[in-house]
Amino acid sequence: VRPRTVKDLGEFGLIRRITGRLPASASVIVGPGDDCAVLPFDRKRYQLLTCDMIVEGVDFTRHQDPRLIGRKALAVCVSDIAACAGAPRYAVVTLGLRPDTRVSTVDGIARGLAAAARQFKVAVVGGDISRAAQLSISVSMTGVVDKRRLLVRSGAKSGDFILVGGKLGDSIKGKHLTFVPRLRQAQYLAANFKVNAMIDISDGLVQDLGHILERSRAGALVYTDLVPRRFSTTSLENALYGGEDFELLFTMPGDEARRLLKKRRGEFYPIGQITGRKDGLRLVERCRVTRAPSTRGYTHF
Amino acid sequence: VRPRTVKDLGEFGLIRRITGRLPASASVIVGPGDDCAVLPFDRKRYQLLTCDMIVEGVDFTRHQDPRLIGRKALAVCVSDIAACAGAPRYAVVTLGLRPDTRVSTVDGIARGLAAAARQFKVAVVGGDISRAAQLSISVSMTGVVDKRRLLVRSGAKSGDFILVGGKLGDSIKGKHLTFVPRLRQAQYLAANFKVNAMIDISDGLVQDLGHILERSRAGALVYTDLVPRRFSTTSLENALYGGEDFELLFTMPGDEARRLLKKRRGEFYPIGQITGRKDGLRLVERCRVTRAPSTRGYTHF
Repeated sequence: VRPRTVKDLGEFGLIRRITGRLPASASVIVGPGDDCAVLPFDRKRYQLLTCDMIVEGVDFTRHQDPRLIGRKALAVCVSDIAACAGAPRYAVVTLGLRPDTRVSTVDGIARGLAAAARQFKVAVVGGDISRAAQLSISVSMTGVVDKRRLLVRSGAKSGDFILVGGKLGDSIKGKHLTFVPRLRQAQYLAANFKVNAMIDISDGLVQDLGHILERSRAGALVYTDLVPRRFSTTSLENALYGGEDFELLFTMPGDEARRLLKKRRGEFYPIGQITGRKDGLRLVERCRVTRAPSTRGYTHF
Repeated sequence: VRPRTVKDLGEFGLIRRITGRLPASASVIVGPGDDCAVLPFDRKRYQLLTCDMIVEGVDFTRHQDPRLIGRKALAVCVSDIAACAGAPRYAVVTLGLRPDTRVSTVDGIARGLAAAARQFKVAVVGGDISRAAQLSISVSMTGVVDKRRLLVRSGAKSGDFILVGGKLGDSIKGKHLTFVPRLRQAQYLAANFKVNAMIDISDGLVQDLGHILERSRAGALVYTDLVPRRFSTTSLENALYGGEDFELLFTMPGDEARRLLKKRRGEFYPIGQITGRKDGLRLVERCRVTRAPSTRGYTHF
């Protein structure tokens, strides 16, 4: 019998398996399974902690501009902090490098990291470098968030409207490297509206909405005609499952959604509604329920 | 002309080059170049932040027990926190995995991480997994330290005694996987003695003492006969340059050193003295200065 491999188990099976083995800790406010861990900080604020790894051949190719690669490594963490409505603070970086990597490539990565650090007001305060078989960059980042403004994946309520903060799909045509993490948008939402659940879309709309539903024990109806597509040529398929959009996906009561849409029409798009858990996630095409989608989307294995 | 590569520049040249490009931040108390970054926390304490990456074929082989690999990934970060006399708190983990990695390997790594988390009272609160060409684990860890007890690399003063907290060399024979980070030893020292500079030995005694000297703008005399060797068969060469000992290396005034050695003889070893910067690092063998050593020791490139 062939032994079971990581590929057989899949990314999310693997994550469940690993986190299931870790001891719980009483002081942790939100542990593994959200965009950031939420930890004690001071009387009014929580500390956020998140990490992301990007790898050559998976998240970028060696032909892409190293500055964009460095930028992306930092920006994906900033997007996680944004999804919790926080503000980023400090980051550390581990770099895996092939010995034959050009110095100019490393310079480019460093410049990209530095530019993103300036743009998002993050201080890169340390790191570690190792010889490796392929280029990889892991960034870990802390942030802070007002206790009253923290947003997580688990608060969606039946009846909530589901909204996205930008157009989806075809991120592979450049956006996956040049996207702007939605820090300001998230902070605007948390400061002015009652948002019940939020996530940033990294694995694809359907899969990331699935994460909200799982954590919130809820179902959802998504009207596919309402899903905003990045280009006129973007397929529905790609808008639903493509991933790396790094747009915000969130739920809020209907009257709050109406108030938001009145103030910021053209920036936010309502795409459906939260329902009961039993419903699962249903896609409605031209007013007909056509299928219950799989949790298809990007997975590493 | 062949373009310059990472291998040409070397690990420390690379680190200087990258950190030189990063913007400074006013709120950072100690930035890149120490065991941990030191950051604001509350009135009495600093927050510590550190990260380490371990890679298959560099820090472990695929034939080693996955539990020990998971343990090591966490323990190297704990050792950094110890070197600053702090207490570890929270960690996040990024895992690079080949798709054909056995599930049992991942289980072992998770068990090793969990066991180390329990042992050192760290909560693993999040992570990220990516497909990769070789197994790698990056751990980032926060900690806290009393402001009055913080120890860094930069405080060594001419006349200080140099001490190590354990025997050195031949860590490759198992210790590099099973070492116990010297948390308690470091906290005992910081609580009861005036220590001027501290580091954990990861790159080898000579190289890590070099880091203290560089940050402290100091020189040193090391009496090689005094360097405690792990086994009777351990060569001086390996005790000086071997690396991954994860013992504490620190400097303190002579009267403090005498007080420490009276209380804890057999645990701490005086090996030399801090001198003026011009002296550099000199090794003394049988009372003769035999050479000014290079900064030889472990480097990744």
